[in-house]
Amino acid sequence: MPRITCPVLKTKVTTAQEAATHIGHGQRVGMSGFTGAGYPKAVPGAVAERAKAAHGRGEDFSIELWTGASTAPELDGVLAEAGVIAKRLPFQSDPTLRAKINSGATEYIDTHLSHSAQQAWFGFYGNLDVAVVEVAAILPNGMLVPGSSVGNNKTWLELADKVILEVNSWHPRAYEGFHDVYYGTKRPPERRPIQLLEPMQRIGDPYLRVDPGKVVAVVETDAPDRNLPFKSPDENSKAMAGHLVDFLRHEISHGRLPANLFPLQSGVGNVANAVMAELAESEFEHLTAYTEVIQDGMLDLLDTGKLTAVSATSFSLSAERAASFNARAEEYKGRILLRTQEISNHPEAIRRLGVIAINGMVEADIYGNVNSTHVMGSSIINGIGGSGDFARNAYLNFFVSPSVAKGGAISSIVPFASHIDHTEHDTQIIVTEQGLADLRGLSPSVRAKRIIAACAHPDYRDRLQDYYDRAVAANPEGQHTPHLLSEAFRWHENYQQHGRM
Amino acid sequence: MPRITCPVLKTKVTTAQEAATHIGHGQRVGMSGFTGAGYPKAVPGAVAERAKAAHGRGEDFSIELWTGASTAPELDGVLAEAGVIAKRLPFQSDPTLRAKINSGATEYIDTHLSHSAQQAWFGFYGNLDVAVVEVAAILPNGMLVPGSSVGNNKTWLELADKVILEVNSWHPRAYEGFHDVYYGTKRPPERRPIQLLEPMQRIGDPYLRVDPGKVVAVVETDAPDRNLPFKSPDENSKAMAGHLVDFLRHEISHGRLPANLFPLQSGVGNVANAVMAELAESEFEHLTAYTEVIQDGMLDLLDTGKLTAVSATSFSLSAERAASFNARAEEYKGRILLRTQEISNHPEAIRRLGVIAINGMVEADIYGNVNSTHVMGSSIINGIGGSGDFARNAYLNFFVSPSVAKGGAISSIVPFASHIDHTEHDTQIIVTEQGLADLRGLSPSVRAKRIIAACAHPDYRDRLQDYYDRAVAANPEGQHTPHLLSEAFRWHENYQQHGRM
Ligand SMILES: CC(C)(COP(=O)(O)OP(=O)(O)OC[C@H]1O[C@@H](n2cnc3c(N)ncnc32)[C@H](O)[C@@H]1OP(=O)(O)O)[C@@H](O)C(=O)NCCC(=O)NCCS
Ligand SMILES: CC(C)(COP(=O)(O)OP(=O)(O)OC[C@H]1O[C@@H](n2cnc3c(N)ncnc32)[C@H](O)[C@@H]1OP(=O)(O)O)[C@@H](O)C(=O)NCCC(=O)NCCS
Repeated sequence: MPRITCPVLKTKVTTAQEAATHIGHGQRVGMSGFTGAGYPKAVPGAVAERAKAAHGRGEDFSIELWTGASTAPELDGVLAEAGVIAKRLPFQSDPTLRAKINSGATEYIDTHLSHSAQQAWFGFYGNLDVAVVEVAAILPNGMLVPGSSVGNNKTWLELADKVILEVNSWHPRAYEGFHDVYYGTKRPPERRPIQLLEPMQRIGDPYLRVDPGKVVAVVETDAPDRNLPFKSPDENSKAMAGHLVDFLRHEISHGRLPANLFPLQSGVGNVANAVMAELAESEFEHLTAYTEVIQDGMLDLLDTGKLTAVSATSFSLSAERAASFNARAEEYKGRILLRTQEISNHPEAIRRLGVIAINGMVEADIYGNVNSTHVMGSSIINGIGGSGDFARNAYLNFFVSPSVAKGGAISSIVPFASHIDHTEHDTQIIVTEQGLADLRGLSPSVRAKRIIAACAHPDYRDRLQDYYDRAVAANPEGQHTPHLLSEAFRWHENYQQHGRM
Repeated sequence: MPRITCPVLKTKVTTAQEAATHIGHGQRVGMSGFTGAGYPKAVPGAVAERAKAAHGRGEDFSIELWTGASTAPELDGVLAEAGVIAKRLPFQSDPTLRAKINSGATEYIDTHLSHSAQQAWFGFYGNLDVAVVEVAAILPNGMLVPGSSVGNNKTWLELADKVILEVNSWHPRAYEGFHDVYYGTKRPPERRPIQLLEPMQRIGDPYLRVDPGKVVAVVETDAPDRNLPFKSPDENSKAMAGHLVDFLRHEISHGRLPANLFPLQSGVGNVANAVMAELAESEFEHLTAYTEVIQDGMLDLLDTGKLTAVSATSFSLSAERAASFNARAEEYKGRILLRTQEISNHPEAIRRLGVIAINGMVEADIYGNVNSTHVMGSSIINGIGGSGDFARNAYLNFFVSPSVAKGGAISSIVPFASHIDHTEHDTQIIVTEQGLADLRGLSPSVRAKRIIAACAHPDYRDRLQDYYDRAVAANPEGQHTPHLLSEAFRWHENYQQHGRM
């Protein structure tokens, strides 16, 4: 079946090189792509070539790049490598780009994923010059069938002066019917309630719209999404998942959760993925998910039948899992719905549905402040992504991490988090392979006792307790959150200087 | 006009002493009261007496105390003084209680104000034994006319096993019609959209409901709310307000705000109050407010006619302003609506309406992380209150503070905030008397340059720049958020050791 059946847009088919000529120095470019899925595969490389040629001629060539979330080597990788990205938002995880950000070459604006579209609409980021959006097909009437992610595509298509489409036939044509693109968002004061009552409820269209008059190029591709291999769950992951699942059982037995739980959200990364794998082996049934990304573990859970259905904005699969999904896409129809990230991550929806949020973290301090983004305070890893959207508005939130990193040289439980993305007011349950600390309704000092006892690695537990005890002794009038500011970051300094905390 | 006209509840009228016998050791008690308004005036004192007598006999007597927000000497003050409060949530600002918390005698759970009711409903805090709620009148059918705050009263009345009512005739009887008590909240999965489209739209009832069978006592009082005197706006406040108002003009001129702005929220404290006073002298007209508290400045703005109407959950007035309001209450009807704090602070409503949030802060660091709650990392001042509800979900948020405190010995702009309540992902605009830093769409390092240049006091500016420059030099691979962890809190240590940062 041909992928481009719109007569008008068919006339725009061209090469990536030709399309890339519409992107010039100093422009703001909104591209599709969310956690390595649904990003344009060809035009970014052609832009990188243009830029290298310009740089070769001694000319400036850089752009501001907006996406849904993280992309892949063919997008962030090549553009970062070519030194094209002056400014980047709202999320990234590409090693080359990360190095550019950490070296100061690229400005990174690390944004709540639910904020990015609206802040673009509000005009806080300036005018959007070009949108480059990958789709699975273009229908006769010019409507677009989205691919493996929706992200901010609706917004970029609407805001941009010019549009470049990539039609990627690697995506199953059967994607038609998998999406729900909500066209009811407005700026204040015209905003209206989002009438979403259940994870799988449709409130929008199956298609993206585009003004054909803005489309300057259509490029055909046949290329896979990023291969995101997952570490297979190790003992640590299984232990964390076990603590978490036990806790859910405990909440059910106390009448605070129904037997089929509330809609699950599971974050990016290995640990979140492993928790889903563990749930697949649990007794829970008729589960639902209202989440951001569908990783392998979530798809496994769907395959077992324990998970009835999942609403998300994107896939983020390993190559094998993507291949098996693509081959059997029709079988998943009606059980997977991909929405715009405005809606998948909307505080209004998350709070209403009572989502159970499970997200990875880098470190937590003894009072439950969580770092999701930085190593040793200064270097960015990925970004906050949707973790804040979900944690703040969830019914329950979990932050999960092994208790140590780098072979035990780093404790994930520290006296003072070297960067704070989620504050003590937002974090509820901290989980490591050592155990689980339920912090709900506790004051900071009681939180500290719980976190140290339940979550810290034995190698670090006594020293954490010692820090806390001495902080208590040193602050007779500061017993709410006792700290020793002179050594709050000593552990991080130790790692920087001696390679061990 | 008699205040208690319900024949059934009239039979329950008794003394505060008698009512207090329903409150025993180890109980959880939900009392009315929000920012010094609408709290019970008599029963808490009687409970304190009971507790002192018990303590005198060598018996334990303590309770967990839940309210709307901060109260007054007659509630938090007397109970803290008597050593009754074992645990306290979700907000406080009483000097005696604060000292108890900071000395470790009282556990304080510092909660987003929009989270407190729902977390009580979810069962995260345990069962509520008794509610003590002040009202302005009891109608013949047993319906309650609320007084100067609504706060969490609906929730406490519904959740508690027993109810004690205080009917305070100091509140104008004309309060009838000033309230909107939303009875549509539910637990997941039964939650529905909140159909609120405008600040002044009524979505609930003018009355609180109570099951008469649960009412164990009704106590009559005639006592004023807490007198909250405001410092009259000084030069610093005027300068901050001036920067803020200029910025609003700038946003209007760039088409990012309409001429009458969006609904305003103004936080607690002197500075937020002063900003309202400044707005009263500006050219803006037809303003609205969707806020938490109505301080003097907001009422002044209403009096000028520049503010059309205000939705809030509570008053927080000086004695003079309260007296003048009470005398002329009828004149304000239709222009003031007091809601439950679930709704005044609801993320869904705040985001939909596009609120402009203005909140005080203690300190901000050079990257825009904001401390609203702690002094030198360990001691609590008040709490986060609604500042997180508003900042996260606002269209625009401002955090305001003089650039120095304690006569210049403390800089409010520091290398690393000693406690973080609002992260870099949430804070948009920082204002001191020195100037305003607009951080929207900026990376941390560009934020730092702006904050140091625009907001820092000249006495500290060069040293902040020096910290930043050396952090940049020391972190060749950590340029995203460069820090010197070994001296991140040196300024705070300096103050602790030498009395000056
Ligand atoms: C926090 C986060 C990086 C964890 O990822 P993960 O894959 O589950 O965790 P891992 O244990 O594999 O750790 C990832 C890396 O961080 C390192 N790390 C973990 N804890 C660390 C710590 N305390 N200090 C320094 N490095 C640490 C690990 O060593 C690993 O590095 P390596 O690949 O060089 O070995 C990831 O969850 C994330 O980016 N979160 C923020 C975004 C988010 O939460 N989105 C959710 C909505 S979808
Ligand atoms: C932050 C907050 C305390 C500021 O209050 P304010 O009345 O506007 O500010 P002030 O400048 O008068 O400062 C209050 C006190 O804090 C002290 N202070 C201010 N900045 C300080 C700093 N950086 N370090 C130490 N102390 C500081 C002041 O000296 C003053 O103490 P004093 O009364 O002993 O002189 C107040 O806004 C608050 O409690 N905010 C959190 C709750 C909230 O934002 N709610 C909003 C929704 S309603």
